[in-house]
Amino acid sequence: MINRVAIIGGTHGNEVTGTYLLRRWAENPAEISRDSFTTSPLWANPRAFSENKRFVDVDLNRSFLLKELNDETIHTYEGQRAKAINECLGPKEKPAVDFLIDIHTTTSNMGVTLVLFDGCDEYDFRLAAFIKSHMPAVNLYFFKDHREDLPYLVSIAPRRLALEIGPVPHGVLRHDIFQRANQVVQLALDYVHLLNVGSEPEPAHDIEVFVHKAVVHFPLDAAGNIYGIVHRNLQDRDFTELRKGDPLFMKLDGGIIRFEEDQVAYPVFINEAAYYDAKIALSLTEKAIRKIDLSVGL
Amino acid sequence: MINRVAIIGGTHGNEVTGTYLLRRWAENPAEISRDSFTTSPLWANPRAFSENKRFVDVDLNRSFLLKELNDETIHTYEGQRAKAINECLGPKEKPAVDFLIDIHTTTSNMGVTLVLFDGCDEYDFRLAAFIKSHMPAVNLYFFKDHREDLPYLVSIAPRRLALEIGPVPHGVLRHDIFQRANQVVQLALDYVHLLNVGSEPEPAHDIEVFVHKAVVHFPLDAAGNIYGIVHRNLQDRDFTELRKGDPLFMKLDGGIIRFEEDQVAYPVFINEAAYYDAKIALSLTEKAIRKIDLSVGL
Repeated sequence: MINRVAIIGGTHGNEVTGTYLLRRWAENPAEISRDSFTTSPLWANPRAFSENKRFVDVDLNRSFLLKELNDETIHTYEGQRAKAINECLGPKEKPAVDFLIDIHTTTSNMGVTLVLFDGCDEYDFRLAAFIKSHMPAVNLYFFKDHREDLPYLVSIAPRRLALEIGPVPHGVLRHDIFQRANQVVQLALDYVHLLNVGSEPEPAHDIEVFVHKAVVHFPLDAAGNIYGIVHRNLQDRDFTELRKGDPLFMKLDGGIIRFEEDQVAYPVFINEAAYYDAKIALSLTEKAIRKIDLSVGL
Repeated sequence: MINRVAIIGGTHGNEVTGTYLLRRWAENPAEISRDSFTTSPLWANPRAFSENKRFVDVDLNRSFLLKELNDETIHTYEGQRAKAINECLGPKEKPAVDFLIDIHTTTSNMGVTLVLFDGCDEYDFRLAAFIKSHMPAVNLYFFKDHREDLPYLVSIAPRRLALEIGPVPHGVLRHDIFQRANQVVQLALDYVHLLNVGSEPEPAHDIEVFVHKAVVHFPLDAAGNIYGIVHRNLQDRDFTELRKGDPLFMKLDGGIIRFEEDQVAYPVFINEAAYYDAKIALSLTEKAIRKIDLSVGL
């Protein structure tokens, strides 16, 4: 039984869609209410929104490792926000919320992407399959990491939906993205309610996932500056086959850098603005089928 | 005769295309060289680029009014950059450069847009017509203001090309945008050279321009916060007819705000990220034909 659901927006200040969804729901709380549970909306990073930045001091969505949550010497703005959120919805070791939704956007052409982790409750996968049954274009991006070892905000909850939606520039609110993000949240809340009242639709037996393999860095010059552009043949082609010999980058001198691996990969987060700081140009995934263990009680 | 051409990139730090074009040309100076003039590339706002912000203290592209350039009490970073640029390429009252190109990007779907001002030399209009003859999708955005009264960087030069190109998110380098911006610069340099050597192709007699009329602000709530989203029917439709009754905004409560003017308008800078601070959602223009005075010697 899910008794308490939290919906988080604005974890990254310049991904503004979640912040405005919270403002909409503040006007219209019925939209995120269902009879079988309570919903707690939470605005994660107000100062970063005001400054139109990803974060003020440190990345809030990398601030939820247990050892940092319990480290009393951390006084960054986001470190304090992480502790406050963990107090309110967690603690991570024994969470007060049963289910948590965190809304992110991306400048990459990733459409609606649900991020899943290993060691997730089967709930997360059944929910993802439910959403995909209603929105077939949804992509599932899977990390082989366990929740306890993750620094993400969603890691404080036992069950979760981590949403990435794009493309939308930082600092921009797009109507189409706003509506689609709201649609995903509505489906998630519907699913929780259906399960709560014992009316889960016939669950899927397996789902297609894109398993995270590696990040790919930009080519750099001797001074460490970015020296190549994501090739136009690759731009916007998230979740699309990348084969040996396909162009990855055009260097500033005009030379082409190609994909050299024998195995087909599926790139994601192609040319994401937030990752330029770390000089990351894209990530690579492989496609797989993840069986859903229907014997696990939810 | 044009003896000295300046090409400016990175006036706004998070519009990164110009910065990377300068880096490309530093590797390959022949690309911006022509026999009949010298080319001076200039990186306008390095600190704002490093911080991935539009500006550090104040908007550099609003810092070129004569009274500010001559105001010794201004010590902002951009105020100092404006003075240094004015010293190097101006002074605005009697410029050292004959022609100046300034490269900007926009998050709006404005394609290649050339910004023109009244009181511009006929040169600017003939150049714009030349570029449009090679790139028919180019849009000409016209302001009824005189160069002397303008705070823009291009206002320090007697002849100029002010380029806006998009859509591209802040902080992102797109291959397609990069190539198209370079193509515009190449055409501009070709035109200068053709004129210098007396080989101007048959000039156009008139060109279609979009004349700036007004800015449109976002709807705000009582606290002054943005309370509406650019309607999806309007999003990405820069330079496309807007008629009475067409939706402009969806308010956060779901209500629709419509365009109420009788006269058809052509919106530009729709949902531009940089203008959220000023709560500006778009600008309106009207379409007109601007005759080119071919009797004016260039």
